[in-house]
Amino acid sequence: MKRNVKIVLEYDGGRYKGWQRLDSNDTIQGKLEDIVLKMTGNKTGIIGSGRTDSGVHARGQVANFIIDTDMKENEIKDYFNAYLPQDIAVKEVAFEKENFHSRHDAKEKTYVYYIYNNQVNSVFDRKFSLHVPEALDIEAIRKALPLFEGTHDFLGFSSLRKSKKITVRTINSLTMEKDGPRIKFVFKGDGFLYNTIRIIMGTILEIGTKKRKVSSIEEVFKTKTREKAGYTVPPHGLFLEEVKY
Amino acid sequence: MKRNVKIVLEYDGGRYKGWQRLDSNDTIQGKLEDIVLKMTGNKTGIIGSGRTDSGVHARGQVANFIIDTDMKENEIKDYFNAYLPQDIAVKEVAFEKENFHSRHDAKEKTYVYYIYNNQVNSVFDRKFSLHVPEALDIEAIRKALPLFEGTHDFLGFSSLRKSKKITVRTINSLTMEKDGPRIKFVFKGDGFLYNTIRIIMGTILEIGTKKRKVSSIEEVFKTKTREKAGYTVPPHGLFLEEVKY
Repeated sequence: MKRNVKIVLEYDGGRYKGWQRLDSNDTIQGKLEDIVLKMTGNKTGIIGSGRTDSGVHARGQVANFIIDTDMKENEIKDYFNAYLPQDIAVKEVAFEKENFHSRHDAKEKTYVYYIYNNQVNSVFDRKFSLHVPEALDIEAIRKALPLFEGTHDFLGFSSLRKSKKITVRTINSLTMEKDGPRIKFVFKGDGFLYNTIRIIMGTILEIGTKKRKVSSIEEVFKTKTREKAGYTVPPHGLFLEEVKY
Repeated sequence: MKRNVKIVLEYDGGRYKGWQRLDSNDTIQGKLEDIVLKMTGNKTGIIGSGRTDSGVHARGQVANFIIDTDMKENEIKDYFNAYLPQDIAVKEVAFEKENFHSRHDAKEKTYVYYIYNNQVNSVFDRKFSLHVPEALDIEAIRKALPLFEGTHDFLGFSSLRKSKKITVRTINSLTMEKDGPRIKFVFKGDGFLYNTIRIIMGTILEIGTKKRKVSSIEEVFKTKTREKAGYTVPPHGLFLEEVKY
């Protein structure tokens, strides 16, 4: 039977060159497509809800692909997990309607960025959090967060060159949770431009370390100039947490 | 000045052969003693609150050593962290009274063992939790836990051979916290015999998977026979969490 298979994935992006298949064999999409080829005998393209960059992790990446199969959902899940390396796991498999498209149909994505704010880095968090040894002005950060919420042209907060593509996106919410040295930033939105979350985080950290004023955010939105925004934080603190349909 | 230096340590035990110095250069004690030698020019023995086995982690191991130094506490901390590999960190340094002994003076130790109870293992927890894919009878486990509390001869729940040493210890509390697939067992006691926590955990898991009855615990205490207890779970789910003085 023809099946449109939706999968929910978890991966530690640390040793991968991101989602998108490249010639080299170290991408998430590449690993998955190799397994579907083994399973079905056919080359099959796997569509992801979005590309994650090199080094970015996922706890709830969603993908789909169309195959002809008699296997059940659980059998497909077990097949993937039998062949996947330990740093990639298929958590759920579900058969969807034939027109389901993991990228086009995504309604909201949640990304999380973790900071470990302590003089000495954490042995256990270091691969999944950005270590920030400097003291942070949490009140200034609290004031900055709502300025990113809502509908804006995020071109200045992206690594895109000036483009004729639409660069307006909506961030539904940007919140911070602090638990001792661990600070978690939760981004919910309809989509994010290339590097937007990492550049917003860099901007927030420059505000937190008093290298930048909260008012500079408005300036970036107004001028749409990448150079006026903060630095791009490294990928290892970033997780694609959930995709809603 | 002569200083009795107390340090609080965090380490990912994954690539080490445990605490105790061996000929090979891959023990926690060995790494620390090499740094103290570099710092002071003198070979100095470092006393740990207890030995952790190969593969066991620590978030709050305590150790002490006596050196002649003009360095301040913070300078010693920074010196350690500058030379330690990323999977070992010194979190605190404090000068103690000259008779402080990190092993003899320990009043209570807290160990934690983590289980990840789900058909598919977690990509992120897998190095720090034991993966248990089978369903667990949580109620049976809840009944078993208090039977380990209190003062008992733990010889049967240890890898010690019959010994003339005192094998009576007190477990002040053994509690379980469940958060979805993550189950955390917290052991607090005045000390634990060799492999006791890992054998108690194996016994608990055999009860949870109905391979063993709760009443078997009493039988092990009575007969003091290792063979009547459960298997020894692997070290990677075990953390030395805290040592109280």
